[in-house]
Amino acid sequence: MEILFLGTGAGVPSKSRNVSSLVLKLLNELNETWLFDCGEGTQHQILKTTLKPGKVKNIFITHMHGDHIFGLPGFLSSRSFQGGDNQPITIYGPPGIEQYINASLKYSKSNLLYKVNIVELDPKGGEIQLNKGWKVKYLPLQHNILSFGYRIEEPKSDGVLLVEKLKEYNIPNGPIFGKLKNGKTVTLEDGTKLDGKDFVGEVKPGKVIAIIGDTRPNANIEKLAEDADVLVHEGTHAKGENKIANRYFHSTVEQAAQVAKASNVKQLYLNHISSRYLGADVKQLEKDARSIFKHTKVAYDLNEFEI
Amino acid sequence: MEILFLGTGAGVPSKSRNVSSLVLKLLNELNETWLFDCGEGTQHQILKTTLKPGKVKNIFITHMHGDHIFGLPGFLSSRSFQGGDNQPITIYGPPGIEQYINASLKYSKSNLLYKVNIVELDPKGGEIQLNKGWKVKYLPLQHNILSFGYRIEEPKSDGVLLVEKLKEYNIPNGPIFGKLKNGKTVTLEDGTKLDGKDFVGEVKPGKVIAIIGDTRPNANIEKLAEDADVLVHEGTHAKGENKIANRYFHSTVEQAAQVAKASNVKQLYLNHISSRYLGADVKQLEKDARSIFKHTKVAYDLNEFEI
Repeated sequence: MEILFLGTGAGVPSKSRNVSSLVLKLLNELNETWLFDCGEGTQHQILKTTLKPGKVKNIFITHMHGDHIFGLPGFLSSRSFQGGDNQPITIYGPPGIEQYINASLKYSKSNLLYKVNIVELDPKGGEIQLNKGWKVKYLPLQHNILSFGYRIEEPKSDGVLLVEKLKEYNIPNGPIFGKLKNGKTVTLEDGTKLDGKDFVGEVKPGKVIAIIGDTRPNANIEKLAEDADVLVHEGTHAKGENKIANRYFHSTVEQAAQVAKASNVKQLYLNHISSRYLGADVKQLEKDARSIFKHTKVAYDLNEFEI
Repeated sequence: MEILFLGTGAGVPSKSRNVSSLVLKLLNELNETWLFDCGEGTQHQILKTTLKPGKVKNIFITHMHGDHIFGLPGFLSSRSFQGGDNQPITIYGPPGIEQYINASLKYSKSNLLYKVNIVELDPKGGEIQLNKGWKVKYLPLQHNILSFGYRIEEPKSDGVLLVEKLKEYNIPNGPIFGKLKNGKTVTLEDGTKLDGKDFVGEVKPGKVIAIIGDTRPNANIEKLAEDADVLVHEGTHAKGENKIANRYFHSTVEQAAQVAKASNVKQLYLNHISSRYLGADVKQLEKDARSIFKHTKVAYDLNEFEI
């Protein structure tokens, strides 16, 4: 799976960063992609990638500020306009998201050719069960309006049957494979005993990705990020700017790095970077965060990372 | 004055054309600019120009389709975010525009630092009186939803007093200048008689610009475009595609050129170009239109023309 940042800026678009959106690409896993936030111009950013809007199956909105939602009506309309197989889409977000989408589509007389399911999430937090054992847990953060963080959990993958290792035994197709796969012991026609456990590969734990909306530091972030492979955290303000970050319900890059460290994540990506930081200043943000948590990267628009 | 095209595409953004928006720059005339339509990404296009959002005094919306309005909430929010002198803005558009804007701002919890006046226009047409004698007439066109065309009329400029020509008479500052300016005859102390008419420059008629929303050919376009200096007309379809243009309530470039000719305009700019036309195809659109009306140009995003 990959994570692709579409917009990594804060509040307003700038020449170098668009407003918030990122994609979790689950093409190998589920043949679909999930969008997190959809600021204005997200569909324009998608034009610069190989993403197909029709493959976007779920959209998760962290909070209702314009720089996170104003691209939704246009994305949904263009997804319909481009045709394809008109797969339904589900949008998860805070209360109010349904009325916002319905109003935008109604007043613009937009008729979508596919079904839109809208799920307003419990402000206290919860868990969403998805296809094939995938789960998304969410909790409220600390912003000046309700803002969610999401924890995406891939199901663990069962050990696969090591077919190559079994070749020498000339086992006929049929129930013996099934028994071995389930870890049982089997006696072949020639009397050979095979223990399933010897022929089943390792059980692999699923990947965990935490994607955090705009927020001040708070205890729920660590719950969402615990042992995650990837944490995406806002870094609106530079190191030392705690006072202004606190006033506007945001975080500094230092605070983000502290959360990453405390949560024992493998990798931290910083987004929601204020447009006042450019060039060398951005490198400094990264450096300051890395002095606390080494595996940190400030994400740029259109950066894609394997997870 | 200048006209600056921000988005010249149709329906959905493409790599080469954004969705609809253009600016009438009246900086020398009124120290303000007027926006016509505001598709998604209009604020992103503005970032590529020298335009200042705070100078946008009026926005005119032709119709409520998403590719003409989905950039409004973001433009309004960013205009506030960028601060400045928080000048009020007035938005003119079809009924529904007020509810659309209010819903978008409400659900996104956007608090603008300036006043937004919203004027829903009479579906039958009318006239808007603006600052310093400027007028905007509007009439309904023929689209699958209510779509307006606008005719912007600059007031005629009174003849200016030819001060250079008066220098040799050593006239003292005071009422004599006023009398001459008003075309009266004045007798100087030395007995010289001066006829005001000889010292006042020509009265210049005001410029006229017609900006037409999405439409099939119809009689109201000619009323709006009559003798205009500039006609901006949609050219969604190529020459000969009258049937498909008619089905979707649009025009061909040929039909646009015919209107320009019949209306006796000085210059035709074609916009709302379908994304299926690229490169040489666009040149062909222009050529076909020019064979009917010579002074035709297909507008590209960020093209600016003096009027």
